[in-house]
Amino acid sequence: MADSLGRVIIEGVQPEIDGGRFPIKRSVGESVAVEADIFTDGHDVISAILLYRKETDAAWTGVFMKALVNDRWRGSFRVEEIGRYFYTFQAWVDRFMTWRRDIRKKSDAGQAVAADLLMGSDLIQKTAKRASGADQTMLRGWAELLVSDKSMNEKIKLALDLNLARIVTRYPDRSQATRYAKKLPVAVERQKGRFSSWYEMFPRSCSGKEDQHGTFKDCEARLPYIAEMGFDVLYLPPIHPIGHTHRKGRNNTLRTGPDDPGSPWAIGAPEGGHRAVHPQLGTLEDFRQFVSKTKEYGIEVALDLAFQCTPDHPYVQEHPEWFYRRPDGTIQYAENPPKKYEDIYPLNFENDRWQDLWQELLGVVHCWIEQGIRIFRVDNPHTKPFAFWKWLIGEVKKDYPETVFLAEAFTRPRVMYRLAKIGFTQSYTYFAWRNTKWELTQYFTELARAPVREFFWPNLWPNTPDILTEYLQMGGRPAFAARLVLAATLGANYGIYGPAFELAENAAREAHSEEYLDSEKYQIRSWDIERSDSLKSFIARVNRIRRENPALQKDRNLHFHPVNNEQLIAYSKHTDDHSNIILVVVNLDPHHTHSGWLEFAPETLGLDPQQSFQVHDLLSDARYLWQGLSNFVELNPQIVPAHIFVVRRKVRTERDFDYFL
Amino acid sequence: MADSLGRVIIEGVQPEIDGGRFPIKRSVGESVAVEADIFTDGHDVISAILLYRKETDAAWTGVFMKALVNDRWRGSFRVEEIGRYFYTFQAWVDRFMTWRRDIRKKSDAGQAVAADLLMGSDLIQKTAKRASGADQTMLRGWAELLVSDKSMNEKIKLALDLNLARIVTRYPDRSQATRYAKKLPVAVERQKGRFSSWYEMFPRSCSGKEDQHGTFKDCEARLPYIAEMGFDVLYLPPIHPIGHTHRKGRNNTLRTGPDDPGSPWAIGAPEGGHRAVHPQLGTLEDFRQFVSKTKEYGIEVALDLAFQCTPDHPYVQEHPEWFYRRPDGTIQYAENPPKKYEDIYPLNFENDRWQDLWQELLGVVHCWIEQGIRIFRVDNPHTKPFAFWKWLIGEVKKDYPETVFLAEAFTRPRVMYRLAKIGFTQSYTYFAWRNTKWELTQYFTELARAPVREFFWPNLWPNTPDILTEYLQMGGRPAFAARLVLAATLGANYGIYGPAFELAENAAREAHSEEYLDSEKYQIRSWDIERSDSLKSFIARVNRIRRENPALQKDRNLHFHPVNNEQLIAYSKHTDDHSNIILVVVNLDPHHTHSGWLEFAPETLGLDPQQSFQVHDLLSDARYLWQGLSNFVELNPQIVPAHIFVVRRKVRTERDFDYFL
Repeated sequence: MADSLGRVIIEGVQPEIDGGRFPIKRSVGESVAVEADIFTDGHDVISAILLYRKETDAAWTGVFMKALVNDRWRGSFRVEEIGRYFYTFQAWVDRFMTWRRDIRKKSDAGQAVAADLLMGSDLIQKTAKRASGADQTMLRGWAELLVSDKSMNEKIKLALDLNLARIVTRYPDRSQATRYAKKLPVAVERQKGRFSSWYEMFPRSCSGKEDQHGTFKDCEARLPYIAEMGFDVLYLPPIHPIGHTHRKGRNNTLRTGPDDPGSPWAIGAPEGGHRAVHPQLGTLEDFRQFVSKTKEYGIEVALDLAFQCTPDHPYVQEHPEWFYRRPDGTIQYAENPPKKYEDIYPLNFENDRWQDLWQELLGVVHCWIEQGIRIFRVDNPHTKPFAFWKWLIGEVKKDYPETVFLAEAFTRPRVMYRLAKIGFTQSYTYFAWRNTKWELTQYFTELARAPVREFFWPNLWPNTPDILTEYLQMGGRPAFAARLVLAATLGANYGIYGPAFELAENAAREAHSEEYLDSEKYQIRSWDIERSDSLKSFIARVNRIRRENPALQKDRNLHFHPVNNEQLIAYSKHTDDHSNIILVVVNLDPHHTHSGWLEFAPETLGLDPQQSFQVHDLLSDARYLWQGLSNFVELNPQIVPAHIFVVRRKVRTERDFDYFL
Repeated sequence: MADSLGRVIIEGVQPEIDGGRFPIKRSVGESVAVEADIFTDGHDVISAILLYRKETDAAWTGVFMKALVNDRWRGSFRVEEIGRYFYTFQAWVDRFMTWRRDIRKKSDAGQAVAADLLMGSDLIQKTAKRASGADQTMLRGWAELLVSDKSMNEKIKLALDLNLARIVTRYPDRSQATRYAKKLPVAVERQKGRFSSWYEMFPRSCSGKEDQHGTFKDCEARLPYIAEMGFDVLYLPPIHPIGHTHRKGRNNTLRTGPDDPGSPWAIGAPEGGHRAVHPQLGTLEDFRQFVSKTKEYGIEVALDLAFQCTPDHPYVQEHPEWFYRRPDGTIQYAENPPKKYEDIYPLNFENDRWQDLWQELLGVVHCWIEQGIRIFRVDNPHTKPFAFWKWLIGEVKKDYPETVFLAEAFTRPRVMYRLAKIGFTQSYTYFAWRNTKWELTQYFTELARAPVREFFWPNLWPNTPDILTEYLQMGGRPAFAARLVLAATLGANYGIYGPAFELAENAAREAHSEEYLDSEKYQIRSWDIERSDSLKSFIARVNRIRRENPALQKDRNLHFHPVNNEQLIAYSKHTDDHSNIILVVVNLDPHHTHSGWLEFAPETLGLDPQQSFQVHDLLSDARYLWQGLSNFVELNPQIVPAHIFVVRRKVRTERDFDYFL
């Protein structure tokens, strides 16, 4: 027969990722708002609580849920610490509230309620048994009053007294309660996982001279520049010794000159592998000092985890079993037929000694954690097994839950989402290739919608050392400015690869290629970072706007608004309480001035549709008085291709003056 | 570390109800098409199979799935027997197909493949070990040829030979395969669960005289009439003895005359309870004979399960503990404050002896199953615990899996859906109150969409003894005809309460009431079923159209099409293979002729957009030649308020004549 008589059903829980198999993500201090369908047979009143606890807590905390419409209930709680939380539900038929509703209906209809008062008194006596102290005394008294010789009217009034309901609610009868079968996990990340501004830079290009290999000391000198722009994560491509066998020359040629430094992603040389520092950058001690210096500037260093080896990597000699072997006994280089990468040996994560390999790679991560690193950008995670990442990230977070992992997985959507589910904090996206209004609207609507938004935190990059898009190649400085604003306002996490970005470097290796000409991947570059046309102060302004406006520090509450011009895109972000509302308009055409009518219903942003409101452009400092559904915008890309408006509810009127009235 | 090295991920399965907790529904002979996201890390080729079996089968049958786009895969199987099936998935990295793809790419690029041929030979030898007989011999020979002294070109050709791929595919290496963690259930019902035409009738009104209580014999005389109209389920309100205490009089009055027969839903009298037959209808033997007579007409009798009692029910004496007790020891009558139903004692499904009560009610069902009944209409199931129904239906279906249960749950959507999930075959709906184009389109789009369509089979009733809608009250005969067509074509299952329906009975008890005047619930009525304005032959025609057109026998593939007139609604249904396409147009305004342009893209119905096509109105037998996106329709409700077109792809042209050419 039935397992229990629990008559209440709890289902349709949102959020719940893949039936609770994966956690939703939140950052410290955020709230978790949860909804569920909760109902029972018949007409009884039910009560429901949302239960939550930190993984390490023994006891659950309960908060009463609120009924919305159509059996939908909502509750919420805040997550205050990094780590894992759980939430679940309990709901029950509430005999007291059912009785209270019915006695009210009957007395309103003038029906006799003598029997009901008897039953209520009994119910309250039972409740008193679960209570103690003053509440117990109070309840017993109340129970007696309901069957006392007071007048019927007085007794009905007592029965319906709100204070009685409040006290009874503290001692519910949950003996027949339904408990939701699953405890649903929440992965709570530190705030930088949710809101960060990345700057990618090749340390070896920091000497200021093309013929001189930069050092960590040179990088230190660059820190004020990066801090002034307002970045808080400095991501360095791999800093390890670079292989010599099949080393790639300038512009990815197969011929290498004696001075060609090779690609930093070709890791491993006689000097060491993933735990070593490239000798020309300095010593491990230099690196440690550099890391501690960055902290003074409010910047955190992110390192690259590129789990692959050159033929010169020590692993090749020490652990040939960790690589793929060809029938002739040689080690297999990387290939994606017909392409060959003879300078790279991929690791075989399924080799017979895979446990040793996995442990070693975990050791690599711990080695850099010991140097003070807590942010890792992971190179091509989608070419290694999901199970490996799930295990590795889980192990790291046991001791260092504040560690942030960014997945560089430019691959198919299901794979990107899976990596996010199994533990990566952030992910690269298709942002670089979404340029038109339709493309941007479609893509960011998908990312901002449930369930994706619950586990996938995008990190938007307008460029990377691998990606110089056609839009940037052709659009000049206005294109860079527009893409910066889009990245920095559509994404709470974003980054640029500089100084190429702020200097609007747009020369591609060849037509239809997204590779940079004279790419830093294969050679040392010197950059004139003080050039007068640099975007650095524009970037600094945008980053300050991000810091000062909490609406831009999450990816929730993103809404697109129609503009009757395909080259103008408009969207808003707001805090849950509407205390901060940002409205962004970008001219996507880097060549021409465009204007149009922007439409949105003021009430969707929490504004009074009858009142005018002020939009204050934080880029130009201009202020506009707007009203109603439709307002005019015009943007000249040669000046600034975007507005970042803060929307202010309060507009001064004559009533604000002392002499009014 | 990782549990296994299974690198393939299977997720996003559709259909899967509440994580596999509840079965999807299918009828015998239907196919189950299933999709899932299946992918792995890296670039390897994967293979996936859909596994299925009947609950009683020991072994799974596998069918290879097909990749669609974006890591989405599809497979399907047919369910051939009533009962429960399961399906699940298995997927793996396919080393052979990966090798085959790569050798093709390399040879196309003119690269050396000698090492690849060696690896391939090795792979095929390993496959041969899993094979036997001729396949094994063939594979071994092939493996040797790939490393023989044949020319490189010949060996590449052999490697890519499709026959080789076919044989290897029979013996996959599934040692590292991923098995989907859940086996997902399918509840397979008989075809009448999916497609049925119901007629509800009060047996006591079948004598033809208001002052004479009808009998089962009288009902027999009515069978040819019902069969001619084309109904295949005859549903009788409760046939049990009716209580006397607080019996309701005509038009639900509290005063009862000596001849008032009472409501059939007031079950239980000294003559017996739920297992007994009302003496004025006849004996149990009469009933059995009536049931066997209906079968001769292709009609099945459905009985009502109304689990409630009058104060005169034998249970009240024998099992007072099954009822709610008031503080003064009396039994509590039904109430929904401020309404009181003093003639009804509800059963307390949570009483201390609930197991006895549940067993007894199961016994009641079995008792009628023994009389040949296999269809039950369940009265107000939403006022009894879900757990009770899940258990009861499960128990009945163990021995009688062909039993059909229709839930009369006019309640909130979540509750209706839950009843469908836990075992009810069919459900009443909100159809009666969906009258405008917008309402009908919204509601039936919701019902025809996943996941609802996978478990909820609607049964559409334009009227019931409790429901005479305002639309029917005011619209006269055209309204009845329009609602019949809507019910019979929007729903594979539908029913009417007659003869009130076919005689367009539209007198309500009072304004704004949906109760019939002189309702059969409280008195015997005589009906002139031969009246010339009866809709009986119209109904017969509609039911024949339903029988002859399989598109109308399921609720899948329902699509609404725009008409530029709010009073005209148009929608189509088609079989999965488009061999039968029905297009329905209904004039929702019972008073005025309406016309408009109906729009649909012919290719959405599997038609060639370049060709004209014929629409043949199965109601009027008129044929129209249509073409392109937009076609004209006009309907006069005084003639017929609807078209039920069958769409015929083939239109005769000059090429059909012998003398063409």
